[in-house]
Amino acid sequence: MLNKNIETFIGCDNEFEQSDIVIFGAPFDSTTSFRPGTRFASKAMRGDSFGIETYSPYQDKDLEDIAVFDGGDLELSFGNTEKALTHIEEFTKQILDADKVPCMIGGEHLVTLGSVRAVAKQYPDLHIIQFDAHTDLRDDYLGETLSHATVIRRVWDLLGDEKIFQFGIRSGDRSEFQWGKDHVFTNKFNFDGLEQVIEKLKGKPVYLTIDLDVLDPSVFPGTGTPEAGGVSFMDLLQAILQVAELNIVACDVNELSPMYDHSGVSTAVACKVLRELLLAIKTN
Amino acid sequence: MLNKNIETFIGCDNEFEQSDIVIFGAPFDSTTSFRPGTRFASKAMRGDSFGIETYSPYQDKDLEDIAVFDGGDLELSFGNTEKALTHIEEFTKQILDADKVPCMIGGEHLVTLGSVRAVAKQYPDLHIIQFDAHTDLRDDYLGETLSHATVIRRVWDLLGDEKIFQFGIRSGDRSEFQWGKDHVFTNKFNFDGLEQVIEKLKGKPVYLTIDLDVLDPSVFPGTGTPEAGGVSFMDLLQAILQVAELNIVACDVNELSPMYDHSGVSTAVACKVLRELLLAIKTN
Amino acid sequence: MLNKNIETFIGCDNEFEQSDIVIFGAPFDSTTSFRPGTRFASKAMRGDSFGIETYSPYQDKDLEDIAVFDGGDLELSFGNTEKALTHIEEFTKQILDADKVPCMIGGEHLVTLGSVRAVAKQYPDLHIIQFDAHTDLRDDYLGETLSHATVIRRVWDLLGDEKIFQFGIRSGDRSEFQWGKDHVFTNKFNFDGLEQVIEKLKGKPVYLTIDLDVLDPSVFPGTGTPEAGGVSFMDLLQAILQVAELNIVACDVNELSPMYDHSGVSTAVACKVLRELLLAIKTN
Amino acid sequence: MLNKNIETFIGCDNEFEQSDIVIFGAPFDSTTSFRPGTRFASKAMRGDSFGIETYSPYQDKDLEDIAVFDGGDLELSFGNTEKALTHIEEFTKQILDADKVPCMIGGEHLVTLGSVRAVAKQYPDLHIIQFDAHTDLRDDYLGETLSHATVIRRVWDLLGDEKIFQFGIRSGDRSEFQWGKDHVFTNKFNFDGLEQVIEKLKGKPVYLTIDLDVLDPSVFPGTGTPEAGGVSFMDLLQAILQVAELNIVACDVNELSPMYDHSGVSTAVACKVLRELLLAIKTN
Amino acid sequence: MLNKNIETFIGCDNEFEQSDIVIFGAPFDSTTSFRPGTRFASKAMRGDSFGIETYSPYQDKDLEDIAVFDGGDLELSFGNTEKALTHIEEFTKQILDADKVPCMIGGEHLVTLGSVRAVAKQYPDLHIIQFDAHTDLRDDYLGETLSHATVIRRVWDLLGDEKIFQFGIRSGDRSEFQWGKDHVFTNKFNFDGLEQVIEKLKGKPVYLTIDLDVLDPSVFPGTGTPEAGGVSFMDLLQAILQVAELNIVACDVNELSPMYDHSGVSTAVACKVLRELLLAIKTN
Amino acid sequence: MLNKNIETFIGCDNEFEQSDIVIFGAPFDSTTSFRPGTRFASKAMRGDSFGIETYSPYQDKDLEDIAVFDGGDLELSFGNTEKALTHIEEFTKQILDADKVPCMIGGEHLVTLGSVRAVAKQYPDLHIIQFDAHTDLRDDYLGETLSHATVIRRVWDLLGDEKIFQFGIRSGDRSEFQWGKDHVFTNKFNFDGLEQVIEKLKGKPVYLTIDLDVLDPSVFPGTGTPEAGGVSFMDLLQAILQVAELNIVACDVNELSPMYDHSGVSTAVACKVLRELLLAIKTN
Repeated sequence: MLNKNIETFIGCDNEFEQSDIVIFGAPFDSTTSFRPGTRFASKAMRGDSFGIETYSPYQDKDLEDIAVFDGGDLELSFGNTEKALTHIEEFTKQILDADKVPCMIGGEHLVTLGSVRAVAKQYPDLHIIQFDAHTDLRDDYLGETLSHATVIRRVWDLLGDEKIFQFGIRSGDRSEFQWGKDHVFTNKFNFDGLEQVIEKLKGKPVYLTIDLDVLDPSVFPGTGTPEAGGVSFMDLLQAILQVAELNIVACDVNELSPMYDHSGVSTAVACKVLRELLLAIKTN
Repeated sequence: MLNKNIETFIGCDNEFEQSDIVIFGAPFDSTTSFRPGTRFASKAMRGDSFGIETYSPYQDKDLEDIAVFDGGDLELSFGNTEKALTHIEEFTKQILDADKVPCMIGGEHLVTLGSVRAVAKQYPDLHIIQFDAHTDLRDDYLGETLSHATVIRRVWDLLGDEKIFQFGIRSGDRSEFQWGKDHVFTNKFNFDGLEQVIEKLKGKPVYLTIDLDVLDPSVFPGTGTPEAGGVSFMDLLQAILQVAELNIVACDVNELSPMYDHSGVSTAVACKVLRELLLAIKTN
Repeated sequence: MLNKNIETFIGCDNEFEQSDIVIFGAPFDSTTSFRPGTRFASKAMRGDSFGIETYSPYQDKDLEDIAVFDGGDLELSFGNTEKALTHIEEFTKQILDADKVPCMIGGEHLVTLGSVRAVAKQYPDLHIIQFDAHTDLRDDYLGETLSHATVIRRVWDLLGDEKIFQFGIRSGDRSEFQWGKDHVFTNKFNFDGLEQVIEKLKGKPVYLTIDLDVLDPSVFPGTGTPEAGGVSFMDLLQAILQVAELNIVACDVNELSPMYDHSGVSTAVACKVLRELLLAIKTN
Repeated sequence: MLNKNIETFIGCDNEFEQSDIVIFGAPFDSTTSFRPGTRFASKAMRGDSFGIETYSPYQDKDLEDIAVFDGGDLELSFGNTEKALTHIEEFTKQILDADKVPCMIGGEHLVTLGSVRAVAKQYPDLHIIQFDAHTDLRDDYLGETLSHATVIRRVWDLLGDEKIFQFGIRSGDRSEFQWGKDHVFTNKFNFDGLEQVIEKLKGKPVYLTIDLDVLDPSVFPGTGTPEAGGVSFMDLLQAILQVAELNIVACDVNELSPMYDHSGVSTAVACKVLRELLLAIKTN
Repeated sequence: MLNKNIETFIGCDNEFEQSDIVIFGAPFDSTTSFRPGTRFASKAMRGDSFGIETYSPYQDKDLEDIAVFDGGDLELSFGNTEKALTHIEEFTKQILDADKVPCMIGGEHLVTLGSVRAVAKQYPDLHIIQFDAHTDLRDDYLGETLSHATVIRRVWDLLGDEKIFQFGIRSGDRSEFQWGKDHVFTNKFNFDGLEQVIEKLKGKPVYLTIDLDVLDPSVFPGTGTPEAGGVSFMDLLQAILQVAELNIVACDVNELSPMYDHSGVSTAVACKVLRELLLAIKTN
Repeated sequence: MLNKNIETFIGCDNEFEQSDIVIFGAPFDSTTSFRPGTRFASKAMRGDSFGIETYSPYQDKDLEDIAVFDGGDLELSFGNTEKALTHIEEFTKQILDADKVPCMIGGEHLVTLGSVRAVAKQYPDLHIIQFDAHTDLRDDYLGETLSHATVIRRVWDLLGDEKIFQFGIRSGDRSEFQWGKDHVFTNKFNFDGLEQVIEKLKGKPVYLTIDLDVLDPSVFPGTGTPEAGGVSFMDLLQAILQVAELNIVACDVNELSPMYDHSGVSTAVACKVLRELLLAIKTN
């Protein structure tokens, strides 16, 4: 008679089969070097999503008009990075195999590697658009090659030159920036040049990875490594709407660390970014 | 293929039909006069319950050996007290009609009235055992007769004299204590006399209501009106185990206000109290 | 010899009779559906107002040059919405009868209804200017017609079409926006069009209601339902100075929930908004 | 018609002339070496006192039956220690001259010196009972002779040997303990020996100074220098009731630093200690 | 002329060569499954240690009379558990080779394994005394064999039966307790039986590992997995003083997670536990 | 063999002799009238500086390419303002005598006076550029002439008219602004006119004092007296880079109060401001 307690992100309560997009949490932060806590992001976002509406006055669209399934959180192994990434890769593949768009909620940024591994197999010509404060282009970090600080370098290992486009970058060591010049497109500080990149990527499969610390810490203090001088919510929203014109085959939103922001604002911002992203993605 | 995200209190993932006990949340705190926030208790307890084990070394029992269903949270109307109480009463009745033991997670203490209304109809000889820091025996509070501060007085309206047994009481106004002397059994500060009460109530239907502020604020700071001089966790555990010898036909645990305790300790304590309570209740 | 401890908002220590403006707190948040706490706003603002100056470098005016009385907080009934609104209405009437401008400190936004009831009786041609993130135009919310989410709809019940002017709106459900198109003026996201509205309302009695969540959550995190993409403090200040050119017969500032912002910034911002508002209002 | 907003500690709203006891705040913490914040104690206690009752079930007495006046807070000079102490001394003298019992709310413990200076002039045979975690017997601290860490040594300068009785002490440097052996009575860790001291001081004028950090940090985390291994609330209450048998001519309660305890428990505990102290003091 | 800024735990500023005890931090928490944050413990303890005294009134000893060197924190690899353990093992060996007693500050409890590996090589007859809320006896945790929840099982792999003595245990799954019965000595809830164990271990090399969550969460809320019903500070202090009668060849103090306790009490408690431990250990 | 634990601001680990710039902490906040806590700034900045990089993408420079020595914190006397200022003056002189640029980390703004005293003796033609929300031009504050609210007035006592240039000012009492008109250059709210001032000061010795509350509280909530309507991080960065064209002979960064911002963002912002300042200063 009574049903078990189901908890989904607001407006994402469709069945798997009927859905076009699948969201899921990847609560992993074992390689975080400064301040951990992103493991709590997806649960916090589900709970606090009921503080926002399903309707977007920006896009005049409603989550109730689209079909999103919330698969809950993966149970990832803490302290065993490679196993966690494999787990994410396999789950992402399952979604792709069912012809749906995976939209992962991190966790630290390294989780992107698990998802990209699956997506790149399906779409060999995959391009990456990265919104982020950090380059994440180190070859290793304190000796580790699998780290939140190396994730985009590892993605480059898979995809090669001219496939990665970074925006909002304002932190990294000098060698990262120097290496990046020859291998990826990097726009520092803001979204300048996004239009041209979009023009170039028209028709190609695109993976959009949003490290929420691209936002200014005033807007989004709840993250492990806040970097002053970031973009505003409206800047990010505008950029998402632009990128959504492309063929987004997978995406993720990561690096919310809710416990560093007792006001709940960061989680609310993350929820709204996810709502707008889900509404903006074009599915068939 | 994939299932929707289900969230229950740890070890309480049985189907309704197979269960002996049904837990549910009553997230209501509209009459709270000092500091609101108990509406967040049940959600917080479900989330943080995964920080405790299903096994109790105190009772040498495991939640996996008993059958508990978690019905989620009622959607209660904020600002309309009577409607919220009716909603709780009806839900409780549904559980009783299915021959199961309802175990409600508050919310402010007033939610107990909704539940007791349903239980008292089923069990006219109902007795109440109340663990609490406050008498809750006012006839009205700032003119309101339905209030967290009047709830046990309203329960007395239903049950009459010699049915209510209070322990741990250490706050109230003088008139409450005076009125109480003629109508209820009150043991101040601790659990002295509990044994005799249990002896007396053997075989009778008993409703156990645990206002968690009976605990000392050092153990349980996350509550709206903390009262110094309370009982320890081991005292409360011992008292619960004793009361569980009786015929508990319904129970509740209330007044956790998680946001006043950023350490998470209060929520963890509440989870453990609930685990021990569920394991201790005798069902057939 | 010694006097009792008097606490007022900074610079608002005039006697009632000598005052042109009367501020008072309406600490009510019983219908808040997401996160309560606005009941603590007025007390927090009085205490922290001593962290700001009485002098405004924006207006080159000083609170010591005008006459404001601080009537303290109403003792409102928690859990009984209609009674609380009546209490507010009666207190507001008392101020209007003494020919002073009432300036209420919420509390949740619903308190505005109590005040508008009194003001609309005195000024039948009353117009409302609302600065807010939310439309508040629902006809009911979870079955309740008196709610923070329905307050402006209830105000419309009193005043009718073409009397309500909303600015900064960025959240609501689709039906609210649709209904609003036919009955109120709504400017989304910012203060565009405010100048024209002011032109139109010249000479008419105006009630200004400021839901502080119109501010961006970066500026004002201490509120129950933070909505990314809001206006800056300077935007709001500018808008207040413009509106103050009109015939403001009453006003309110609401939805500060101080406990969600441990930094105290939100309370400090609210204090400054109130100071600027008091200095800007034209009295005779 | 309307009166200015008056704020007093709960149940302490009598006029000065009619009162037997006068409470006042001394919000000073400029010499605090580790973590400041006690300046906020008295304001916080007034505000949160409405979360407790005026009635004590421990003493079966009510604040409404006694006559206490709340004189508000002194405006003390930050950074000028001697001036602040003089201010306190003068205010205390004013109360003594009116034949009332001064009960000061600190502030850091150094404020006791200001008050004792006034009281010792009136009562040359003054004795001190000190409940504290720290000896406070240094002769200077980082070169300063007026410091929270030297306060009882300065009191000794005024009163001499065999006048000071310390209980609950569990922190200090070795030399303090050694010096103390020859000059004051010190009972480490708890209240052992209090009975004998009380016997000895019968009939003599006694100043009771309660540094709330005598309480265990579990009970009272909101203090600048928490010291594990303290007494329980019930221990402290018992000790206060015992001391109140003596001729208490003045007293103080200090070292609450509310901002270190977001749960509000420490402030609630301090309020209850003050209530019990006010009810226990014998006045004529 | 001027020297670089040196930061040590209070009173532990001796040179390595002159020291008998070496403290160092092992800031690692990558396998923490519930709430991470112990990586911040050692830094927080160094900073806040200046809030306590070097002198212990419990032991009448002073840190200034003994010789302790503070080696700072190891730079451990996040996300690579085996590498981190090896790093700890090597550093511990370096200390042992210099004939000093290593005293490690965790980090999650798993760091104990690294240290024990080095110590067990030096002392094949090593015995372990463990103060802890959790058994930590799982064979694997979510598939991982190296985990905070398996650490004592891994220690048993090294040492075998009848070498491990647990006290204060009050959480674990059923199978852990059952396995433990045959392989380790477990005293649940408190320190009963400690005296007999000490009698038994006289003269043998002993490693003392203190998981601070053995303390009641009221005393020590700043830990990842708080477990109600723990021991008091005085209980723990007493137990440490008893164990210190033995031949302690190495020790550690772990699982402080300072960011869960904004009051700073947990860090202060941890500092005092470390001070008492350092003063109690017998060195030659 | 092993070295003592050294803690410096990131990338500032040079020896004194080899350095061009010397940073040091002045942890003093005894005259703070509203909310103390800046004493914790320098320690917090050292600890959290490891969350930022040594490389600046804004200036394309790296802290590793310049030579900065971190002298740790002065041990200042709490409660004795004059003594603390003298201590700061003497330490600053020591740095100047060694021909290095002192860069002090406050502490409340009053610490600037100590440093300016030393610098002004060395450079009689000293000019001050002040970035601040507050004028700090009072002649006395609550009777005290040495106060955070009088510091720039005291600096004026030393330097006289036409030497002080304020930017970002948005708070003060009316008389401060009026006095200021005749004696200092004040630009309200932002950095307008900075270019002309820089033109004017070319070649002259300049002391740059940055009160971080010049930043908007959204960017920098962790300060005692947050003032809405401040500048952005990018505005401040730009202004620092401009001023660095001048002959900066000394500087300071003050008024971070880390405990008011649990997110850590304010400390991270302060660290980045310091990094950019150190990289921008021209040394020979």
